[in-house]
Amino acid sequence: MNLMNLIIDVGNTRIKAAVFENDRLTEHLIFEQEQLLEKVEEIVKKYAITAGILSSVSEISQKTLALLHEKCPFVLLNSETKVPFVNKYATPNTLGVDRIASMANAAVKYSGKNVLVIDAGTCITYDFINDSGSYLGGIISPGIEMRYKALHSFTAKLPLLTKISSPKITGDSTVSSMHSGVINAVLEEVKGFISSYENKNKDLTIVLTGGDTNFLAKQLKSSIFANPNFVLEGLNAILIHNK
Amino acid sequence: MNLMNLIIDVGNTRIKAAVFENDRLTEHLIFEQEQLLEKVEEIVKKYAITAGILSSVSEISQKTLALLHEKCPFVLLNSETKVPFVNKYATPNTLGVDRIASMANAAVKYSGKNVLVIDAGTCITYDFINDSGSYLGGIISPGIEMRYKALHSFTAKLPLLTKISSPKITGDSTVSSMHSGVINAVLEEVKGFISSYENKNKDLTIVLTGGDTNFLAKQLKSSIFANPNFVLEGLNAILIHNK
Repeated sequence: MNLMNLIIDVGNTRIKAAVFENDRLTEHLIFEQEQLLEKVEEIVKKYAITAGILSSVSEISQKTLALLHEKCPFVLLNSETKVPFVNKYATPNTLGVDRIASMANAAVKYSGKNVLVIDAGTCITYDFINDSGSYLGGIISPGIEMRYKALHSFTAKLPLLTKISSPKITGDSTVSSMHSGVINAVLEEVKGFISSYENKNKDLTIVLTGGDTNFLAKQLKSSIFANPNFVLEGLNAILIHNK
Repeated sequence: MNLMNLIIDVGNTRIKAAVFENDRLTEHLIFEQEQLLEKVEEIVKKYAITAGILSSVSEISQKTLALLHEKCPFVLLNSETKVPFVNKYATPNTLGVDRIASMANAAVKYSGKNVLVIDAGTCITYDFINDSGSYLGGIISPGIEMRYKALHSFTAKLPLLTKISSPKITGDSTVSSMHSGVINAVLEEVKGFISSYENKNKDLTIVLTGGDTNFLAKQLKSSIFANPNFVLEGLNAILIHNK
């Protein structure tokens, strides 16, 4: 049977939606939270949606959820949802929905492999799933924009900067020193954690996703799959797993 | 002639003071900003102080400075002060006084060597002076406590944590993932930057200072001089240079 899946990923400020025909991404939209019902209505009119999944890091009212359900029956992702991997996190109910989705995609797409997923967004999360499909946990560090904000907000004199690519290691001004301390430091951190996982797990598959995917991918020399849609694909994998 | 130097280092919240007999630290005090005049008076009564230097990252009123000057004539450190190194920073008037002091100490104590000074405090600063005594600039990244504050302040759900030593790389809960993303990430960053400088500069001398000196030193395997008094020693070196 042909599946036409609607994926809704509600972030802190905006919503990403996608339509998958089986495991192939067909359409991809980004819109504001208040446009949720209207946009879903448009999508449902355009495609013969067979099932939906909603993942949210924000609170959504029961009323909105009920209205949404009328337009398109959906799975609401939480820590109880059936997933295609073994969750060995000690506190599974605090595991972020984006991280659940990433691990689902890693388990399905790279089945039988050791996979490290690096999601570079507000925070940088690193999540590891081993070759027998067990998720063991990961790392949460401050994201690029967060580091610039912290240097400005938590000191008296440092300015607020916008990221630049490939700053020199040794900055010869306050501004260039800060760029190095954010961007080069993140690159050293990513390379360092990749090495740690590579040393312990042979044939490691590395995936980079999140808002800073392309920004970081071009500055990293490691062999990496850069895939900004990895979380959306993971939500689709969970939906298929729950058919 | 025997020197008895009074060093005053005014930080964002507290003041460090030290008495050096020539280049040897004799006494070391930490007190609140409002205790400045009272504490200086005590020190001046106890020791035959021959000269003083004051370095400050906070604003100090002209009145306080004048009263201080009556108790003990001092050099006020700023970007115009004569220092025992060549400052090649593009914006020397924005170079922090702590960084000036560090580089002065590196130039005097490790004269003729390539030196990297890592000051792990509110921010982590990395400063490099080459074997001909030229300061070329450095790196400013968020400090350990700042990273914990950022993860909590700039996200909806992450708690505020206090640092722990040697967390596992793979955290199996939100809290342990965050510890890894702060502490292990800082260690990867420090190791990575040390490697970068070592690759370009043979016989590199590495100094670690600042509030997190001992916390980080025991977790780093590199050969490092851990010296929490490096900035105070640098202020003393500048004072001697200005005799």
